[in-house]
Amino acid sequence: MASRSRVSLALRRARISSIPCSRPIRPLSQFRWQSTASTEDSEGVAKGTTGSSKTIKFTSETYPDIKRDPKFAEITEDHVKFFKKLLGKESAIIDGVTKDATDDIEPFNGDWMRKYRGHTKLVLKPGSTEEVSKVLKYCNDNMLAVVPQGGNSGLVGGSVPVFDEIVVNMSRMNQIRSFDEVSGALVVDAGVILEVADGFLQEKNHIFPLDLGAKGSCHIGGNVATNAGGLRLLRYGSLHGNVLGIEAVLPDGTIMDDLGQLRKNNTGYDLKQLFIGGEGTLGIITGVSIMCPQRSNAINVAFFGLESYEKVQLAFREAKGQLSEILSAFELMDAQSQDLVQKVTGNKRPLESEHPFYCLIETSGSNSEHDNEKLEKFLEDVMEKEIVSDGVVAQGQTQVKELWGWREGIPECLGHWGGVYKYDLSIPINELYALVEETREKIHNSGLLGDTDDHPVVDVVGYGHMGDSNLHLNVAVRTYDKRVEKALEPFVYEWIAKRDGSISAEHGLGLAKKNYIGYSRSDTMIKLMKQIKNLYDPNGIMNPYKYI
Amino acid sequence: MASRSRVSLALRRARISSIPCSRPIRPLSQFRWQSTASTEDSEGVAKGTTGSSKTIKFTSETYPDIKRDPKFAEITEDHVKFFKKLLGKESAIIDGVTKDATDDIEPFNGDWMRKYRGHTKLVLKPGSTEEVSKVLKYCNDNMLAVVPQGGNSGLVGGSVPVFDEIVVNMSRMNQIRSFDEVSGALVVDAGVILEVADGFLQEKNHIFPLDLGAKGSCHIGGNVATNAGGLRLLRYGSLHGNVLGIEAVLPDGTIMDDLGQLRKNNTGYDLKQLFIGGEGTLGIITGVSIMCPQRSNAINVAFFGLESYEKVQLAFREAKGQLSEILSAFELMDAQSQDLVQKVTGNKRPLESEHPFYCLIETSGSNSEHDNEKLEKFLEDVMEKEIVSDGVVAQGQTQVKELWGWREGIPECLGHWGGVYKYDLSIPINELYALVEETREKIHNSGLLGDTDDHPVVDVVGYGHMGDSNLHLNVAVRTYDKRVEKALEPFVYEWIAKRDGSISAEHGLGLAKKNYIGYSRSDTMIKLMKQIKNLYDPNGIMNPYKYI
Repeated sequence: MASRSRVSLALRRARISSIPCSRPIRPLSQFRWQSTASTEDSEGVAKGTTGSSKTIKFTSETYPDIKRDPKFAEITEDHVKFFKKLLGKESAIIDGVTKDATDDIEPFNGDWMRKYRGHTKLVLKPGSTEEVSKVLKYCNDNMLAVVPQGGNSGLVGGSVPVFDEIVVNMSRMNQIRSFDEVSGALVVDAGVILEVADGFLQEKNHIFPLDLGAKGSCHIGGNVATNAGGLRLLRYGSLHGNVLGIEAVLPDGTIMDDLGQLRKNNTGYDLKQLFIGGEGTLGIITGVSIMCPQRSNAINVAFFGLESYEKVQLAFREAKGQLSEILSAFELMDAQSQDLVQKVTGNKRPLESEHPFYCLIETSGSNSEHDNEKLEKFLEDVMEKEIVSDGVVAQGQTQVKELWGWREGIPECLGHWGGVYKYDLSIPINELYALVEETREKIHNSGLLGDTDDHPVVDVVGYGHMGDSNLHLNVAVRTYDKRVEKALEPFVYEWIAKRDGSISAEHGLGLAKKNYIGYSRSDTMIKLMKQIKNLYDPNGIMNPYKYI
Repeated sequence: MASRSRVSLALRRARISSIPCSRPIRPLSQFRWQSTASTEDSEGVAKGTTGSSKTIKFTSETYPDIKRDPKFAEITEDHVKFFKKLLGKESAIIDGVTKDATDDIEPFNGDWMRKYRGHTKLVLKPGSTEEVSKVLKYCNDNMLAVVPQGGNSGLVGGSVPVFDEIVVNMSRMNQIRSFDEVSGALVVDAGVILEVADGFLQEKNHIFPLDLGAKGSCHIGGNVATNAGGLRLLRYGSLHGNVLGIEAVLPDGTIMDDLGQLRKNNTGYDLKQLFIGGEGTLGIITGVSIMCPQRSNAINVAFFGLESYEKVQLAFREAKGQLSEILSAFELMDAQSQDLVQKVTGNKRPLESEHPFYCLIETSGSNSEHDNEKLEKFLEDVMEKEIVSDGVVAQGQTQVKELWGWREGIPECLGHWGGVYKYDLSIPINELYALVEETREKIHNSGLLGDTDDHPVVDVVGYGHMGDSNLHLNVAVRTYDKRVEKALEPFVYEWIAKRDGSISAEHGLGLAKKNYIGYSRSDTMIKLMKQIKNLYDPNGIMNPYKYI
C-alpha cells in the first residue's frame, strides 16, 4: 500500500511553467481561404499546414466511383437571377456562374481537413427563415441540389459539395432570439457561433451544454445537425435531451415550426429529433431552442498516471462513485499520445514519472471548497488503493488550461509529421483500449511503423472521452499510404462491428463514413432510415451523395 | 430583514409525528379487477373508490361520436385458433371470443382512472420479441386493430381499447437482460416493472433515471412509449436523452433492432426517438436500453412557506444557483392544495404558520455533509432576503417521506369528494400560477364553487413540478358536472395556446387529449406527424382512435 507521504507528494500542486499546446480559438470573423490554411477538427485544435486550396484534390477525383446524378439540373443564369432578386443584398450571394468568383467561392468548396473539395459555383446566404424557405422550394421545384453549411468545421466532409451543389451558408442568420433567465431556455438563429452563445450565457451565469474545440467557428445549427458530442456530454448529456425545439425548412419550403421552449411537451411525435444528427439531409435547421444549465463557480482539474487499462477502468468507476454529480470530464490519453505531444511541443510534462496511461478529470460544481475536498479525498483514495500511481491538481485557471493542453493538444501534435488516419469510435468500455493495442500490433507486424522516414507510420495512439466510451484511434503518418489504409480498413470497422460499437461516435457519417454504416447498423435500420429520407426529401436534393 | 434568531427558529429540524398521505406502492403482482377497485395516476398515488367495473361507462357510450372503423375485421374463432397455436401457453392468451371470459378480461378493458372502458374479447401476452412480431404481422395482414398495453397506469386512456381492439399485454416480457456496472447501461424487456428495475439497480448502487407514483405497476416499455416525466426529470433529464436504444416491432412484423448500449452513436437518423412518446401508435416497444446514473448517498428534503408566487420564482432561481448540481426536485403546492390534504388526512402540518404557497426541495448528492451545508446556507440566505417565510428540513428517511407526502398526497386527497378534473400543463414559468388564479376566479364567479353540497366544485388547486415548468391544475368536485366542464374548456386550452404552452406536459395525448392537440401544435406539425403515422402504420391498426 502506498505510504501517506507518497500520497501527499503525489498530490502536490502542479507547477508547470511553460504552456503546452494551448487551446487555440479561431477568431469569430468569417474564415477566408489562405495560402497557409488552417485546419481544425471538432476534437479541439487548429493546425497549420501549407499549400493553397489548389493543392486539395477534388472529391470527384479522390472518389471517382461517385458520379454526379444527372437528375439534378445544372445551374443557369436564370436560376442566379432568381436568387439575386430573392436575397436582394450583394453580400447574400456569391455568384460564380455568371462571372469568375473562384477565390471567393473556394472557402465554401473545401473543408477544414483539406480532404474534400467540391465544384460549386453558387453560394447563397439567406438572412431569414422565409428566405431559406423560398430558396429550398425553388431548388426543389427545379431539381437543384443543395448543401447546407454552418461553420464548416466537420470532420467527415458533410458540409461541402461534391459536385456543383448550391451551398446554402447560414452565417447571416446569426441573432440570439431570446433567453429566459429563470428556465434557462435559449433561442438562437442556426448561424449563431457556439462561442458567441456561450459568451452571452456566461454574462447570465449560464453555460451552453455543449463545448468543443471548433467553438470559435462552428454554428449551433451545425452542432445540432451533426449531433455534436464534445467535452460536456458526460455532465450535461446529449443534444437529444437538451434541445427543446427546432425550426427547420423542409425541401419543399415547408417551415417546421417546432421551436418550443418547454422542457416537457407530450403532444405527438418528437419530430425535431430526426433533425438532430440528420446532417442536413432532411432540411435546413434555421432556429434552435436549447436548455442551458446554471454555470458552475468552481472548476477543478486533476491529471494522473496509471499502470494499466484495468486501473483506468477502476479509476473511472471510483470517480463516478465518489465525484458523482460534480464529475464533468474523464478523459483518457495513452503514453504514446503524450510522448508525441511532448516531442512536438517540448513542454515539461505535468508528472515527473512516466506511465502507460494518463487520465484527466474535471469537476465543476457550485462550491469550490466542497469540490476540492471531494477531489482530494478521491485522489488520496485511488492512490492508497494503488489504482493511480501519481497525480497533480491544477491550481488556478492557467494550470487548468495547461493540463487540458495535454489532452486537447493531441490531434494538433499528431498532424506534425504529415497526416493522421482518424477513427472516432464508440466501444464497450471494458474493451475500449484493446483496439489500440491490436491495431498497433498489426501495423507494427506489417513493418509500416518505425522511427525512420522509410516507415509511413509514426505511431498508433488512443485517447478520448472515456466517460462516454468514446475512443479516438489515431494513426500518425509521415505520408498517406495505401498500405496503411489497407492494414486499417476494414480491420477497424470489423473489430467495431463484432462488439456492437459505433463506427462514428460523434463525428457523423458525411461522405467519409457513408459506406461503412453497415458495420454499425443493420439492413433493417438502414432501410427504415431511407424511408424517412424519401418521405422528407423525395427528390433527394438535400446534401446528396452522403449520409445513408 | 429577518433576524438571525428567526432564521434559526425556522430552520429547526422537522418534528412531524404522524405520517401524512404516505406514498403507497402497489404490489408487484398482476393487478386484478376488484369490486373495490384502486385507481392510480402517474403523479403518485393510489386511491380507493367503490363500485365494480360494471359501473364504468363504456368509452363508446361516453364518446358517441367515435365510431368503430369498419375497415377493421371482427375477431373470429379462426383468428383465436391462430393465436393459441402461436403463443402456445394457456397463460399467454385470454380468450373471450370462443367462451365467456368477461371477468378475466375486464382488467384489460378498463383504465385505472375508471374513465375509459373498451369491449375487447381477446388479450394476448406474447413472451418474446419474435412472438410480438408474429402477432403484429398477422393482425396487419388481417386488418385486426391492436392496443399495446404495459402496466395500464396512464391518465389519458391510451392503453385500453375503445371497441374490440386486441390487447397485446407485455407483462410476460419481464426479464432484465443485462447491466453494465461501468457504463451504467441497463437493458430490459419492455414489460419489466419500473420498481423492479430500480430495486435491481439499487443493489448495484445505481438509480433508474425516472421515478413516478405508479412505479409499482407501470412497465418500462410503457414509460418510454408515453415519454413519462415524473420526479427525477429536473435532475436526470428526459427519456429522449437517457434512452440509449429501443427494440420495437412495427405493424408489419419488422423488428427494429435499435437496442444499442452506446452513449454516442452518430450513424444515421435517431429513429428510436419517434417511439419515445409515440404512445404505441407506430409499433410495440419490446426492449429498452437506458443509461442509469450512480445512486446518490445523501438525500435532503426541505419544505417551506412563501408569501407570493413572485417569491416562489425568486426561491427557484436561488435554488438553481446555490444548489445547482445537487438540486433534484423543486415542487410547488398552493395553500388550497395543502388545506385539502390536511382536511382529508387530519395530519399535523410541517409548518406552524400558514402561507399562500409552499415549496418542497430535494437535494441528492454524494456527500451528506456538503449537501447539508449547501442546503442550510441556501435556506438561511432565502430567509434573510425574506424570499422564504418559514421552513423545515427533514431529518432522516421517515421525515423525508412525511414531507414528500404533503406533495405526493395531493392527487389522492383531491379525489376524496368524488372526482377531479385534471390538467397537466407546461407553461412559461413566470405565468404558471396565473392560470390557477384565473380559473379559480372564473369558477367562483360562475357560482359553482362553495362549501356546501349544492356546489359541484370543492376547490381549484395548483401544484406541480415547478422545476420543469409543469403545472397540475386540478379542480376537485363533488360530482362531475357539465357546467364545470363548460367553464373549464376550452378556457384552459385557449389560455395555454396563447402562451405557447403545452396542453399535455407529461401525460400524453391518448384518447383524452387527442382533440386538443391543435392548441399546442400547428397544422403543419400535425400534418408532418400524420405522415409518420402513415409511413409506419399504413393500415392504421396500431392503437386507433387516439393520439394525433
